[in-house]
Amino acid sequence: MKLTKKKAFSNIKRIVGKDNFSSAKEDLACYAYDATARTYLPDGIVFPANTREVAEVMAVVNRAGIPVIPRGAGSGMTGGSLAVEGGIILSLTRFDKILEIDTDNLIAHVEPGVVTRHFQTAVEEKGLMYPPDPSSADFSTLGGNLAECAGGPRAVKYGVTRDYVLGLEIVLPAGEIINTGVQTAKGVVGYDLTRLFVGSEGTLGIITKMTLRLLPLPEAVRTMTAVFSTMADAAEAVSEVIRRNIIPRTIEYLDNASIRCAETHLKVGLPVDAAAMLIIEVDGKDSVVDEDINHLAELCREKGADTVNIAKTKAESEALWKARKAISPSLYLYGPDKINEDIVVPRSRIPDMVRKISEMREKTGLTMVSFGHAGDGNIHFNIMLDKKNRIELEKADAAIEEMFDFTLALGGTISGEHGVGITKAPYIEKEIGTTELNLMWKIKTLFDPNNILNPGKIFPDRFNPVSK
Amino acid sequence: MKLTKKKAFSNIKRIVGKDNFSSAKEDLACYAYDATARTYLPDGIVFPANTREVAEVMAVVNRAGIPVIPRGAGSGMTGGSLAVEGGIILSLTRFDKILEIDTDNLIAHVEPGVVTRHFQTAVEEKGLMYPPDPSSADFSTLGGNLAECAGGPRAVKYGVTRDYVLGLEIVLPAGEIINTGVQTAKGVVGYDLTRLFVGSEGTLGIITKMTLRLLPLPEAVRTMTAVFSTMADAAEAVSEVIRRNIIPRTIEYLDNASIRCAETHLKVGLPVDAAAMLIIEVDGKDSVVDEDINHLAELCREKGADTVNIAKTKAESEALWKARKAISPSLYLYGPDKINEDIVVPRSRIPDMVRKISEMREKTGLTMVSFGHAGDGNIHFNIMLDKKNRIELEKADAAIEEMFDFTLALGGTISGEHGVGITKAPYIEKEIGTTELNLMWKIKTLFDPNNILNPGKIFPDRFNPVSK
Repeated sequence: MKLTKKKAFSNIKRIVGKDNFSSAKEDLACYAYDATARTYLPDGIVFPANTREVAEVMAVVNRAGIPVIPRGAGSGMTGGSLAVEGGIILSLTRFDKILEIDTDNLIAHVEPGVVTRHFQTAVEEKGLMYPPDPSSADFSTLGGNLAECAGGPRAVKYGVTRDYVLGLEIVLPAGEIINTGVQTAKGVVGYDLTRLFVGSEGTLGIITKMTLRLLPLPEAVRTMTAVFSTMADAAEAVSEVIRRNIIPRTIEYLDNASIRCAETHLKVGLPVDAAAMLIIEVDGKDSVVDEDINHLAELCREKGADTVNIAKTKAESEALWKARKAISPSLYLYGPDKINEDIVVPRSRIPDMVRKISEMREKTGLTMVSFGHAGDGNIHFNIMLDKKNRIELEKADAAIEEMFDFTLALGGTISGEHGVGITKAPYIEKEIGTTELNLMWKIKTLFDPNNILNPGKIFPDRFNPVSK
Repeated sequence: MKLTKKKAFSNIKRIVGKDNFSSAKEDLACYAYDATARTYLPDGIVFPANTREVAEVMAVVNRAGIPVIPRGAGSGMTGGSLAVEGGIILSLTRFDKILEIDTDNLIAHVEPGVVTRHFQTAVEEKGLMYPPDPSSADFSTLGGNLAECAGGPRAVKYGVTRDYVLGLEIVLPAGEIINTGVQTAKGVVGYDLTRLFVGSEGTLGIITKMTLRLLPLPEAVRTMTAVFSTMADAAEAVSEVIRRNIIPRTIEYLDNASIRCAETHLKVGLPVDAAAMLIIEVDGKDSVVDEDINHLAELCREKGADTVNIAKTKAESEALWKARKAISPSLYLYGPDKINEDIVVPRSRIPDMVRKISEMREKTGLTMVSFGHAGDGNIHFNIMLDKKNRIELEKADAAIEEMFDFTLALGGTISGEHGVGITKAPYIEKEIGTTELNLMWKIKTLFDPNNILNPGKIFPDRFNPVSK
């Protein structure tokens, strides 16, 4: 018999204790948003304390057919933690323990609610490194990073979150607890359920524990900037870095609008007249980082950089990163609303993409800002506008569609690290074929037959009868 | 209507041409074996020329309900390419083209029948590296490497095959052609079908094309050996290497029986009285490899190595690798039959595993040889015996079971790179829980509802009604 919502809520309160469940409007409002600036009020919010409680809560909501939306910090960029069909937000904030950092085997066992930066700092104190470093690392959680397969600037050398996940504990919709993967570097027994969950955006199960792979902390890091008077020169420099077979740990680029934005916000002395700026960072042994950074500085000068500056102190380098990370939130200087895309093109096609963005800017008259991880071709392309202005909004929607088509024609993808969520779901069939998408939906149905786990995400509307 | 076998065979001949299909006994005999030394005669062998032909053949066999076993070089260690339930061997040997090596974007598009070493050589000529390097690389194919998620000695630094696969073209059992993944370093659109196929041992679909990730070729490599009079000292040295935060590209170990075996076979002057030998290799910039290898040589001496020898020439280093790779085939010096296991334990537990093997050797009186990738805890544990000797065989089976239990108790896995196939299928439930295995079977059924793709593999008998 299907459980009523009222009965389900009272059961949940019994499981987690009355202080850890709420359906009061003032509480729900705090969990109605994410980084997309869209809001959907959930019906309830629950804070389970441990895996057993998650399992019991899931069994209840599964019987009641109530949607469940797992949530870390709510910092996702595509709506993954929004209650678009109502239901209960399942917050993992109480899963905040670093269970073990095993320095002998370079692995860690952690809970999903741990803030990414806290974890990075804890492993660094032991001489180790957890490379995935999304711009949101100061507040986003590891669980959210896994659900979206977060990337960040270091991916060019170190790969993305997927590459650091060895094993998971997961609660399935009906409340079964499963374990996937291994605790070792190698392991090939059975199908790779671990990586099926990474990037599945909370639609297949609730991650309650994770085993992550670590690396030794590099001895030294060097950071430099190179300022260019044309974007084409900057893009050409990026391609040349890779052609020389040097893999820096980051190659970030900022266009003029990004530079101005960050400078207005932070006043750190960025070159506001430059067409483009690169931030390049190398790491490794003390004995080689200087040689490497000097080599790259020389290369940027050869490729037409107006000024090249190697950071002399850690503070100088940190100021640069602070500026880089301030871009995304500070873009609201340009307009009340942001359409934020996260396209990837093969590195060598960055110049084509840069040209395309210029053309589109001229053609539409819209404010377009681009910056991102040039080293792996991952471009954060933003249109700043006032969505209440219907004409602007229509132009922007058409521009996004044109950008996606161009990205795919270059051999790229419409999302490198933000996921699909609700904002890209209408476009997913541009990239994923019908047979492939149907297979994915069958997998979804296999894990979550009642479609209670984060419904309305990833798949376009025809898979989700309930309207958004 | 179900197609008869006769009609199916004649249809297949029409698709691929009569020279590319055979059901003649003398031809079938050549495709009845793999590296497990077990034999199962298939009913037919087909050599499709391209993806379209694979799709058409699959549509026919799917209608006829005939098992299809995809096959590369037949060098698998767990029976993945054996026709255990009869059916047709689908050989990918004509898929032997390297379609493109894209030096700007560090990716390659290749067909699955390309021999791993040919591909490695081709990318090295362009200054790049494809790191996965199974001992079988001289003859195994990339398709087989992907199907098993091959590893090899370099995994300690560079990871396994999974880490280098970006996208796939796959033919599903009913003949649909799908594309998974991306051509870029990042990509998070939809579920990760790519990695679901990697390591799925040919049970979900036929890989017909792949996009692989490449790295810049390191400037220099240095190789050293360290010889120890106790295995415990060698194991302790391995742990210490990792504790010092140096990641060599390989840390291989050979026990006394392995050293003797390789020496008898090759006469290269290995230390036949040593309890253990480590082969350690570092790579990187010219300016640091000497410093690194000297540091590791010193460390091995501190940890009690009797002799430490840094290879002075490339030829000297190649001779060492030739010896290392000769171990597995030359083990037949010790007995007509080999039981070959591929366990992994957390690196720091290698000393425990080494002690366990000694105890087991004493307890059973069986010939046990162990060697492997100490850097990632991946131990190739072999029992050499005469399987016709029932008492020996029973003792060996019991020993394997005890080893698996011990491995799992240490937090390890029963297969690091060989897969499950038929040899480990009876043990898979020691590692994978019932809920997890049932989920995997549901995934199998979703992709291959008629169970025609490599039936009888991975899953224990109760999932496969046809007896092996």
